[in-house]
Amino acid sequence: MARKELPTTFSLGVCYYPEQWPRDRWEIYATRMRELGLSFVRIGEFAWSRIEPAPEQWNWQWLDEAIGTLEAQELAVILGTPTAAPPPWLTVQHPEILPVDPDGRTRAAGSRKHYDHCSPVYREHARRIAQSMTERYGQHDAVIGWQIDNKWGESDSTRSYGPASREAFRSWLANRYGSLSPLNEAWGGAFWGQEYTDWSEIVPPNLTMNEPNPSHVLDFYRFCSDAIAEFQAIQVEEIRQHSPDRFITHNYMGHFGEFDLYRNAEAIDLVSWDSYPTGQIDKDLLPQLDVDYWARTGHPDLTSLNHDLMRGLKPNTPMLVMEQQAGQINWSDYNCLPADGAVGLWTVQAWAHGCAGVSYFRWRASLTGQEIMHSGLLRHDESWDRGGVEVANLELGGAELEPVQASVVLLHDYESLWISDAQPHAHGWSYWKQFTLFYSVLRRLGIDVDIRHADADLSGYRVIVAPALQIVDADRAERLTGAALGVSFVAGPRTGFRQPTGQAQPDGQPGPLRALLGYSLLNVDALRPEMTIQVDDEEVMIWAESYDPIDSDVMFTYDDGPLAGQAAVVRKDRAFSIGAFSPILIGRVLAHVLTEAGIPVEPLDEGLRVSRRGDRTIWMNFNPDDRRLPDGRQMGPVSFLID
Amino acid sequence: MARKELPTTFSLGVCYYPEQWPRDRWEIYATRMRELGLSFVRIGEFAWSRIEPAPEQWNWQWLDEAIGTLEAQELAVILGTPTAAPPPWLTVQHPEILPVDPDGRTRAAGSRKHYDHCSPVYREHARRIAQSMTERYGQHDAVIGWQIDNKWGESDSTRSYGPASREAFRSWLANRYGSLSPLNEAWGGAFWGQEYTDWSEIVPPNLTMNEPNPSHVLDFYRFCSDAIAEFQAIQVEEIRQHSPDRFITHNYMGHFGEFDLYRNAEAIDLVSWDSYPTGQIDKDLLPQLDVDYWARTGHPDLTSLNHDLMRGLKPNTPMLVMEQQAGQINWSDYNCLPADGAVGLWTVQAWAHGCAGVSYFRWRASLTGQEIMHSGLLRHDESWDRGGVEVANLELGGAELEPVQASVVLLHDYESLWISDAQPHAHGWSYWKQFTLFYSVLRRLGIDVDIRHADADLSGYRVIVAPALQIVDADRAERLTGAALGVSFVAGPRTGFRQPTGQAQPDGQPGPLRALLGYSLLNVDALRPEMTIQVDDEEVMIWAESYDPIDSDVMFTYDDGPLAGQAAVVRKDRAFSIGAFSPILIGRVLAHVLTEAGIPVEPLDEGLRVSRRGDRTIWMNFNPDDRRLPDGRQMGPVSFLID
Amino acid sequence: MARKELPTTFSLGVCYYPEQWPRDRWEIYATRMRELGLSFVRIGEFAWSRIEPAPEQWNWQWLDEAIGTLEAQELAVILGTPTAAPPPWLTVQHPEILPVDPDGRTRAAGSRKHYDHCSPVYREHARRIAQSMTERYGQHDAVIGWQIDNKWGESDSTRSYGPASREAFRSWLANRYGSLSPLNEAWGGAFWGQEYTDWSEIVPPNLTMNEPNPSHVLDFYRFCSDAIAEFQAIQVEEIRQHSPDRFITHNYMGHFGEFDLYRNAEAIDLVSWDSYPTGQIDKDLLPQLDVDYWARTGHPDLTSLNHDLMRGLKPNTPMLVMEQQAGQINWSDYNCLPADGAVGLWTVQAWAHGCAGVSYFRWRASLTGQEIMHSGLLRHDESWDRGGVEVANLELGGAELEPVQASVVLLHDYESLWISDAQPHAHGWSYWKQFTLFYSVLRRLGIDVDIRHADADLSGYRVIVAPALQIVDADRAERLTGAALGVSFVAGPRTGFRQPTGQAQPDGQPGPLRALLGYSLLNVDALRPEMTIQVDDEEVMIWAESYDPIDSDVMFTYDDGPLAGQAAVVRKDRAFSIGAFSPILIGRVLAHVLTEAGIPVEPLDEGLRVSRRGDRTIWMNFNPDDRRLPDGRQMGPVSFLID
Repeated sequence: MARKELPTTFSLGVCYYPEQWPRDRWEIYATRMRELGLSFVRIGEFAWSRIEPAPEQWNWQWLDEAIGTLEAQELAVILGTPTAAPPPWLTVQHPEILPVDPDGRTRAAGSRKHYDHCSPVYREHARRIAQSMTERYGQHDAVIGWQIDNKWGESDSTRSYGPASREAFRSWLANRYGSLSPLNEAWGGAFWGQEYTDWSEIVPPNLTMNEPNPSHVLDFYRFCSDAIAEFQAIQVEEIRQHSPDRFITHNYMGHFGEFDLYRNAEAIDLVSWDSYPTGQIDKDLLPQLDVDYWARTGHPDLTSLNHDLMRGLKPNTPMLVMEQQAGQINWSDYNCLPADGAVGLWTVQAWAHGCAGVSYFRWRASLTGQEIMHSGLLRHDESWDRGGVEVANLELGGAELEPVQASVVLLHDYESLWISDAQPHAHGWSYWKQFTLFYSVLRRLGIDVDIRHADADLSGYRVIVAPALQIVDADRAERLTGAALGVSFVAGPRTGFRQPTGQAQPDGQPGPLRALLGYSLLNVDALRPEMTIQVDDEEVMIWAESYDPIDSDVMFTYDDGPLAGQAAVVRKDRAFSIGAFSPILIGRVLAHVLTEAGIPVEPLDEGLRVSRRGDRTIWMNFNPDDRRLPDGRQMGPVSFLID
Repeated sequence: MARKELPTTFSLGVCYYPEQWPRDRWEIYATRMRELGLSFVRIGEFAWSRIEPAPEQWNWQWLDEAIGTLEAQELAVILGTPTAAPPPWLTVQHPEILPVDPDGRTRAAGSRKHYDHCSPVYREHARRIAQSMTERYGQHDAVIGWQIDNKWGESDSTRSYGPASREAFRSWLANRYGSLSPLNEAWGGAFWGQEYTDWSEIVPPNLTMNEPNPSHVLDFYRFCSDAIAEFQAIQVEEIRQHSPDRFITHNYMGHFGEFDLYRNAEAIDLVSWDSYPTGQIDKDLLPQLDVDYWARTGHPDLTSLNHDLMRGLKPNTPMLVMEQQAGQINWSDYNCLPADGAVGLWTVQAWAHGCAGVSYFRWRASLTGQEIMHSGLLRHDESWDRGGVEVANLELGGAELEPVQASVVLLHDYESLWISDAQPHAHGWSYWKQFTLFYSVLRRLGIDVDIRHADADLSGYRVIVAPALQIVDADRAERLTGAALGVSFVAGPRTGFRQPTGQAQPDGQPGPLRALLGYSLLNVDALRPEMTIQVDDEEVMIWAESYDPIDSDVMFTYDDGPLAGQAAVVRKDRAFSIGAFSPILIGRVLAHVLTEAGIPVEPLDEGLRVSRRGDRTIWMNFNPDDRRLPDGRQMGPVSFLID
Repeated sequence: MARKELPTTFSLGVCYYPEQWPRDRWEIYATRMRELGLSFVRIGEFAWSRIEPAPEQWNWQWLDEAIGTLEAQELAVILGTPTAAPPPWLTVQHPEILPVDPDGRTRAAGSRKHYDHCSPVYREHARRIAQSMTERYGQHDAVIGWQIDNKWGESDSTRSYGPASREAFRSWLANRYGSLSPLNEAWGGAFWGQEYTDWSEIVPPNLTMNEPNPSHVLDFYRFCSDAIAEFQAIQVEEIRQHSPDRFITHNYMGHFGEFDLYRNAEAIDLVSWDSYPTGQIDKDLLPQLDVDYWARTGHPDLTSLNHDLMRGLKPNTPMLVMEQQAGQINWSDYNCLPADGAVGLWTVQAWAHGCAGVSYFRWRASLTGQEIMHSGLLRHDESWDRGGVEVANLELGGAELEPVQASVVLLHDYESLWISDAQPHAHGWSYWKQFTLFYSVLRRLGIDVDIRHADADLSGYRVIVAPALQIVDADRAERLTGAALGVSFVAGPRTGFRQPTGQAQPDGQPGPLRALLGYSLLNVDALRPEMTIQVDDEEVMIWAESYDPIDSDVMFTYDDGPLAGQAAVVRKDRAFSIGAFSPILIGRVLAHVLTEAGIPVEPLDEGLRVSRRGDRTIWMNFNPDDRRLPDGRQMGPVSFLID
């Protein structure tokens, strides 16, 4: 394979930390990696204290050798910049780089991610280490690409409330608003009398007595998201200069919404993400999820949603899973052992949803540090662990990388997420939960789905679904109305409830989408955990809203509760609005919409899923027991079939 | 109506924030308020940053106009002083006014209530803004009264643990005790060796390793309560000087016990409070409450208890609900939509329990800030929301304001509350829970109830109930013994357990009430959530205490548990003591007491309630289904009948 | 009795605070103590502010008199040094002695234990008060012994994260490692790039963004444990000098593992501990414990485990319960009243498990301070409380103090506890839970048990059980292998998983115990609360691990789950390894092992227990109902029988 790019067929890799292992194991490990069929290795992303043990004292030899032993086995290297792990000498010299949490506590060194993205001092050090590494390895034959830092936002690091971020926030606001008058207007400063007359009066929205102003919060979240992009840009610039023909990637986290991944991905070449299916089930992302049932495989939709979302960040570029769970993890409350077959099934699922490769985490189970209880492909004793055996038996390397083609698109928007979750109104409701519900219902109907930004080009899709698009202004409304011409459009609850400032629409929901959707919001109802109401005998939980169908047709009305008799689902031409949080009802409406749009619907058992890539159809059974496919074929537990 | 006073019949009003709405809506809104039948409007209480955008820069015009547009529609104005919302410039100039929470964190501006009541700087600024506002509007024709600040204690603002409060606490103690010797005696300084030898050694009771000394806590709570009264007094003085013939009110919160409302209300003319029935059900105030069942109406007794309590703060003066929930709220965990009819029923209930008027919160649902998801009489789009429609249909404006006359009084005491909850002994027990249980049992028996301070004049009552009067000294005992002459007296558990210092009685419970009650405490038993014991086959939960009936008669004994065979209820003449937390048993004893006292008892279904005002009898059904009255008449769900 | 030592038969005492009671009660109380049959009294341990109300102002007279009134009744005195309660003047003069918690908050005076054990200033003051007290009372006829401080570690005081501890931690590390290179090696500094190049870079492991490095944590816990020992040693030295022929004790807490009790007990003469049976049931120490059922007696094994553990700290010296619950406590969430007979039964149990005496807590229920709701032998009103009556009726004083002789020993190790709980892997698993399970299974089989340090001399035992010995190095492995010669050895899960650094064994579990145990670890599985798997139809919960039986025999395999078919229990000769957390399965294996070892097994009902001391057999029924003994005799509820 060529050294400076990813293989053109599906390839496997591994995350590896040579600095954690004796020198005399390196050649042996590289050989075993090759024997396992791996073609690339990610290294380096926490090695700063080893590379530069003291300021400007460089220790390259070990890394030269580490890369060399991999190269000798024709393993391509993705090299990480180690900015996720500021070395101890740096935080002692410059404690001002440490982040401050919402409780006002300055956080300490000793693990990772202990820096404020806005710190000018840390930005300069990050630039310096990126420069040094790329100067040395930017043209290295074995190095095919760069990963910048590790998992933006991990360990609650997205937002810092200390001096560095406070100052930068003020500048960001000054740049956004020009003067305080529009800022006061945007934030509704008249509310509770918090109108500002000097920039110095503005602080991050923490430690307030009552909850902070949501528009203040929204702008602070925007700012923090931008700060990560700026922090990343400094390293991008160094890599472009010294390693111009290698790709740049970052390993995002699944179901993570604290920064805008679309904006962040603009600057990089290739999206990757870290997939830990069993770690997602406790996060209340799907209603009434049987977490014990899925404890050993994860729920298929919670994994594939992220594949589809990541694929949509840069639609026509390759995508990787940079860290793929290959055994038990160590960081969830209960770290169950994965089921037999799960590692193979996850890998197939990644390919089915458009990945170009999968890199397992990690090579050998660590003897030291925070990940001692995390599995590797090798056990502590260097024997192959269960996941390693599954990888060895997997006949997927070399599979072709045809595109995934979907007729249905879900619209996603981080600003809507931020403001939605700042005022969820009902404990237990969240943007992700609403979004994931629509996604999962579509998957259960056998539908392939793209996920795209709300302002993306939507041409070519036959059904556009906006599960939770709370922010809509005139421009967005115009774009969406244009995109909806001649195709089907489905809006979830609270669509268009707010303006980009976070303020409610002065003419009420759905604001500028009224011409498209044909209704006005009447009332919202938040339901307690054990409370339900009914729509056409289907159970509604968590959230219900009712519509005045000003020029739309009522498809369903509420059976009971304060909204009884009012519209729960309306349609205006091919634009549908669903106000009730009801898995079954949403399934009925979506099946109707898809059928009307000429897209065949194939209802599947829970845990049985289908995906299509190129001309291949991939059937996957995540259940711990046999399942029968629609065509009558039988599938074993935790298994796949590729047609 | 006359401008300088409240109407003499039941009147309706609304809370309104003209500064949050475009100038061109003001006349329209005033007209619609008038059309709805409102007669008064509360404005201004968060408008400091609009009135004084920079130090001593006064911006009165908008407020002149806002009042003017209301006056033009003959709407009376209650004007709030805006001290609940220190303007941003003030906290930047004087960060020392910010409060410090029990964790030692200095809290930030950005919402409301961000000040320490003891800060001399903030006290001066509060005086200054009160002076300026009353100089300008103190004689304004439209202004009938003043509301000082907003919701004392809201957002955990009662108690600050920072330097301003610390210094003031030392002065308060020096004033109370004169020297350290009696303080050490009162606090039991010998316990764990915390005897003080210098005032500077005393700090607020936070961040201690083990729990703080309860007498220390009790005095700190007394001090904080007094500090609010002092803070209020500064503004009272300004209003008396510049607006002498207008009433002064404050809008208290329901079931809020962090300061002494009796002491606080002394300085004002008219009590008002903020009633949000659906926000009370999660607060564990009634045992085994079915919170889902009451999610759309609140529980009637949790609302009416506060009406009765507030009415007793200043027994012979008018009382208002200053903020009346009129749709969904936004600040509870689950913000369910109220049932059809609930807004009307709550209004009737307020009148039935002695209110002179009700002011709905808020006029139009906010487009901005923390209350975007809170309902108004108008929706975001200015259409009438459900509550607005109910208000329009309500035929209660103009009802007469006869007194509520009760034969039964419950004794209430904030100092007992503070010390009780400082050492509850059983997780799940609280002063309010004990107090509310007795109240609710009486309501279920169809009884009208007054709530008065433990040291109030109790003449005229035929049954005196002390549900949770933990502090009793010789003076109080003498007063109560006198009041009990010839009438019935009922004492709940832990009555008289403590001295005013918070110390236990050296001769044991009930201390100086022994002559009246005729028993000595044997033992207390705290029950785990699923544990119960029995008294005469009735279930006892949470709390049980047993009595040595030294010169009383045993009415009931415990059936089982460690207290088996010991007295659970004793009587000495007409003084009854009930040691078991048992809704049914308490009901049986109270029914007996009432019947013996010649007060007719009329057991009602849960959720069906009756009140009497003047010669009117008001029947209320808070259930979501039909109920039959004792006389056989049928009532619809969430409805009322006035005889 | 002789004044300078404990009685040679079982004796009773009481904890007493004369400084909290009027002077005129002292003689009366001493008389009543004597009448009750008490022979010793513990006083003084919180009296610093009374002894030295201001720096170097000594107030001895009250204490002279207090001791004198006790001496007059021939009551022996155990005198406490009052360092658990720094006086107010000291923390004002030296705020730097205050501890800092893991959140970075400096904690305040006002309760007790508010000091950092490493503070040089406080160490000097502690020395000074110990010197002064021992100079005065070191040779007093009535004083038989000294208790240093009170409950090491109580109120989360074991670990301070402030400057004093930080500096001392660096010195401790420098002393342990000599240079940073072995420290970096031991902590695995290469993990997440935290390699240190200067001692000043090292801080306590708190406020890290992600979890801290477990080896860093382990060393910090070792250091904090040593710091307590050092703090104690300063007072030991003073006592040895001025009171050389009196014993020194400390009152440890049950199931408390934050410091190494073996190391701590080395410097003292006599172990004592504080037994509060009803306060232990909420601590999740036994799986599926019915906490309501045991709410009034505690679970017998949770109490006796601590007797057995404390007895093993100094195997051939007397042992006391220094504080014995004698009624309701005040510090658990639910403070139920003990059952009739419980105080007597607890006392008998203490004797049966090797105690030389029991001191009840406390004499009279306090009128003041944090313990107002805690029971005493006397009620607030000075009448005998229920516990006092039980003590009066107890015919146990004077029982002989024969040794407890056990054939089975459980190995215990605080370092294993620390590292186990730093990385439990499964929420709900803990070292204590694993350890207590094995202990309780043995007790249920009617077996007497010793608990000894993992490195103790184990000769004489016929069965050695290592329930949770996670740390094993070559030396320990060699000792254990030697001890296991010719006897039975049982290893629980995770045995030998780690090295003393906290790192995993490079050759995998059980590391250097492989020759003894004959297996290699395959996989661990952590189970969610509602998940179970099966071994030979027995339910496995929480934890499962499977073994490759390299030269051992498989006794049991997993029936289902990912480990199906793999070994759950293996034996190599007489060494057994049990990888499954399964009360029934562990019981089956242990019964087999014991029978094979010739130790008779007598399965007992839950709550029915037997102990042997000397030639006496003590049967105890902790159930609230009658139980039948194996020989057919009937026992009443909460009762004992001594054969």
